[in-house]
Amino acid sequence: MADRLLCETDMEFQLFDWLGLEDRLSSCDLDGETARAYLGLSQKLASDQFLPHYKASDVREPRLDNGSVYVLPEIRRALDEYRDLGLFGASFPEDLGGMGMPYLLSSASYAWFAAANCSSIGYTMLTGANARLIAEFASPSQVDTFAKPQIEGRWFGTMCLSEPQAGSGLADVRTRAVADGVDAHGNRFRVSGSKMWISGGDQDISENIVHLVLAKVPNASGDLPIGTEGISLFIVPKVLPNGDINDVAVAGLNHKMGNRGTSNCLLNFGEVDGAIGWMVGEPGQGLRQMFMMMNEARIAVGFGAAALACRGYLLAVDYARDRLQGRAAGERDGPPVAIIEHTDVRRMLLAMRAYAEGSMGLCLYSAALVDSPDDPDDAALLELLTPVAKTFPSEYGPKANDLAIQIHGGYGYTRDFDVEQLYRDNRLNPIHEGTTGIQALDLLGRKILRDGRGLEVLYARMSQTCAKADQIGELSGDADALRAAIAQVQATIDALRNHAKDQQMNNAAQFQTAFGLVVVAWIWLDQAVAVHALPHGGPMNDRLRAGKTKTCRFFFASDLPIAAPLLAQVASGCDVARAAEPDNF
Amino acid sequence: MADRLLCETDMEFQLFDWLGLEDRLSSCDLDGETARAYLGLSQKLASDQFLPHYKASDVREPRLDNGSVYVLPEIRRALDEYRDLGLFGASFPEDLGGMGMPYLLSSASYAWFAAANCSSIGYTMLTGANARLIAEFASPSQVDTFAKPQIEGRWFGTMCLSEPQAGSGLADVRTRAVADGVDAHGNRFRVSGSKMWISGGDQDISENIVHLVLAKVPNASGDLPIGTEGISLFIVPKVLPNGDINDVAVAGLNHKMGNRGTSNCLLNFGEVDGAIGWMVGEPGQGLRQMFMMMNEARIAVGFGAAALACRGYLLAVDYARDRLQGRAAGERDGPPVAIIEHTDVRRMLLAMRAYAEGSMGLCLYSAALVDSPDDPDDAALLELLTPVAKTFPSEYGPKANDLAIQIHGGYGYTRDFDVEQLYRDNRLNPIHEGTTGIQALDLLGRKILRDGRGLEVLYARMSQTCAKADQIGELSGDADALRAAIAQVQATIDALRNHAKDQQMNNAAQFQTAFGLVVVAWIWLDQAVAVHALPHGGPMNDRLRAGKTKTCRFFFASDLPIAAPLLAQVASGCDVARAAEPDNF
Repeated sequence: MADRLLCETDMEFQLFDWLGLEDRLSSCDLDGETARAYLGLSQKLASDQFLPHYKASDVREPRLDNGSVYVLPEIRRALDEYRDLGLFGASFPEDLGGMGMPYLLSSASYAWFAAANCSSIGYTMLTGANARLIAEFASPSQVDTFAKPQIEGRWFGTMCLSEPQAGSGLADVRTRAVADGVDAHGNRFRVSGSKMWISGGDQDISENIVHLVLAKVPNASGDLPIGTEGISLFIVPKVLPNGDINDVAVAGLNHKMGNRGTSNCLLNFGEVDGAIGWMVGEPGQGLRQMFMMMNEARIAVGFGAAALACRGYLLAVDYARDRLQGRAAGERDGPPVAIIEHTDVRRMLLAMRAYAEGSMGLCLYSAALVDSPDDPDDAALLELLTPVAKTFPSEYGPKANDLAIQIHGGYGYTRDFDVEQLYRDNRLNPIHEGTTGIQALDLLGRKILRDGRGLEVLYARMSQTCAKADQIGELSGDADALRAAIAQVQATIDALRNHAKDQQMNNAAQFQTAFGLVVVAWIWLDQAVAVHALPHGGPMNDRLRAGKTKTCRFFFASDLPIAAPLLAQVASGCDVARAAEPDNF
Repeated sequence: MADRLLCETDMEFQLFDWLGLEDRLSSCDLDGETARAYLGLSQKLASDQFLPHYKASDVREPRLDNGSVYVLPEIRRALDEYRDLGLFGASFPEDLGGMGMPYLLSSASYAWFAAANCSSIGYTMLTGANARLIAEFASPSQVDTFAKPQIEGRWFGTMCLSEPQAGSGLADVRTRAVADGVDAHGNRFRVSGSKMWISGGDQDISENIVHLVLAKVPNASGDLPIGTEGISLFIVPKVLPNGDINDVAVAGLNHKMGNRGTSNCLLNFGEVDGAIGWMVGEPGQGLRQMFMMMNEARIAVGFGAAALACRGYLLAVDYARDRLQGRAAGERDGPPVAIIEHTDVRRMLLAMRAYAEGSMGLCLYSAALVDSPDDPDDAALLELLTPVAKTFPSEYGPKANDLAIQIHGGYGYTRDFDVEQLYRDNRLNPIHEGTTGIQALDLLGRKILRDGRGLEVLYARMSQTCAKADQIGELSGDADALRAAIAQVQATIDALRNHAKDQQMNNAAQFQTAFGLVVVAWIWLDQAVAVHALPHGGPMNDRLRAGKTKTCRFFFASDLPIAAPLLAQVASGCDVARAAEPDNF
């Protein structure tokens, strides 16, 4: 049997039956047939060109030789084919040379590739985010020069935010940009400083690399402004438009636990005379510009985590069907049975499916919201769900991958099976694009306590789901459980509002975990409702209905109930972590 | 600052103040000074000889060359020194050439080494278990020939249980042993079959390797007996007493995600004329003999997992003190603060300490029970706690290591820091010596539903702890919480007894998780009581008291409450996993 990347039936169900993709296509002159062809092409290319070097890209890491980074040749070949098919431009508007696909659809395509080889497809994700940022905020000449070659896939892009001394704390960025006149590409600067954790910071795949660099412009006395307000955004290409090599040096490669196919560099800008860069938009807007794109980048991390979880789940299902071990419960003699017959293996498979497909559902739902920026409800809900779509898959995806190892037993702990690499690869996701802790502050502080509009929309949609589930006998109990969980979430938020301001974030992490469980319970219930609406009788639909319904049941029985004690801790204002002192450790 | 392996203050507290090690030594003619000297020596040797090659043993794995396995030379040098100091024999009786240390003390020594380099010290753990099994069940001549050289550390040992087709399901062992006469070493057999996952299966460290092999003796018609009753235990040395090389071939090396310094082999016994082996004790007793030693092996796994968690915790504390990032809550200007000032970092450190030191406490407590086999209460409690001492550290230790990565941010995901290796190394522990799922069946099925004596003892000791905690103001609330949790455990067991027999194990995994949380909550409360009894005023004691008390508080606030919904699920008899069908996946 060919190695499955994602469950085709489930992706078809989620996109077309659950989220109604076909209806969403009419606004962009596409039809279901085109969408399916695009997804089919993605699945095939992912299987044929990306999956085969999954292991090789882990073993033969990018290497730094005489200042240049070289990656596994198979990565280049796969991305060449991706480019030749025009896939870099899939979600860009046609006037920029793209195909005008909705984000929901291009995200689903991305999920297929991420399941096959997350580190190889990573280059396209960064390139797309870079080009989108330029297309949104830069001048027409900057768009022509620096975004279009990326949309064509000839150039790749990076995001240069972190510095060795400043990871999550961007206020402390020390990279400086000194004005150097004006030219055809806008306000020119000389950029100098070190940028850390730059994925795709160098490689031998694309003709050029466009670095988007956060830096500060010193004031008259040469000091950098304090805080994040002084941060601006600069386009700093590896090769300048005139063909000269810019002053950007690879100071080192990071050697990671996983995700190794994506080169990850320490870049030194301006070691000689200052790297030439052009400011994007106005001074001091760098962080705002970057964060305008952050929703998509964070959802993309969620998709990656979900895809790795889904592939691990499918590998575990196949292994559990094949591997013979032990006897059926209560039996002593007779031949050994496939381990899928054992209750605890089924428990693990149900948990994996719940985390993997629940994560995928949450990300797809969020991606659909990205496509309707003019709907104020959708926009508010997207703001609220973004940290959840980033964090739940990043935290529960690795749990699914952990269970995939467990189902494989000792074999799962060896490098002969992909499940151990999936586990290592997925461990990146709680770290990059804002750690889990940062997301929790964003969720509770900014998206809930400061502005509750998204929450109102969420409650309304959850209520609609519950009302539909009430009509379906086997789902009505879960609808009641979801309503109770929503009530507890709201009571917890009410309690927090009565706490002192400096105590409200005491247990933001626990709140985020609980909130994620409630949101994903809703996603599952909503999918269970949708799967019941499918025509009965077809073997495919009946099997999907049974599987989805039981997984939903499992999540409500095993995972959602964990939210209650977590929310109780948040509501109590428990300050044991906040009040701990460095000396207590 | 030198790299810390375990917290010295905590180990001193747990062993001497909490568990009263000094009193336990009188029965074996040792005193506290000797014990401390032995522990100090262990700590020093671990730091000087085992820690320095921790990374190297991960990078330069054992290699198979022309049928022989070669390991990193530093592993051999470290183990040579360990042997020269007589440490292989530490816990063996003096008449066998050992030092007669109690298991509690030798386990604490083991923990220091496991924290420094779990895969290098792994060879000694296997060797000790092998020699102990021979010493317990084999004939005097077998003990002289095969156990004593291991107690001296000249020969190493292995445990050969699993086969490629039979991991957890030992009933399906196919290795056969055919009678081949009697000689000075007892009943001789010719052994043939393949054994998988053999740690230390070959290496170039010791003069000889003693394999303890589970195999079946065919009946008159040449068939192997069905089930586990037909399994016998055989001593199969790599080099025979006459100096001939035995018929044992290394068919392959497994390449693991972590724990790489311990070679792990597929061994083929008897490819030529049958490997020569001698039966230990009576036919058909193999599994019983193996399981008599299993308590110690499982607790040793717990110790390894706890030690890795402890080291990760200390690395994270040091990193969190040094790493500057962000501002104190509510501040905008001023210099960046150490990340230990952030509430969410403190939350992670508290969780890590709770899991790491709680695991260590559980293992030390269990090891102390091993030392009093004649006390029926202790013996019953040991039976009950063994699966918990194996599983809680194996499941929560990796969680602590996961948080250690998270505290290190991107740096933690690189191989430049040890935390990623600790995470990979610890992932083995839920798999070997009985998976987490197997432990859950043992705990709930065998140790609780079949024979509740251990539980009675546990309840009595928990009640004593609660009664003492009632007298200490800041602990009395946690005593109430523990009593409530105990009541829910008992109510859950009562409910299970009313379920149909074939439904009782439906949620054994969830029960085990909940039970582990309740047990470790008790360990924490008992340590909090003990730390309050220390003389007040000394800065060391005051700091220990504050740290222990807050960590206990954290575990009761954040982790123990998770037990309630899990137990509710168990009590409900939820059969969603059991009733799932292969077709649902």
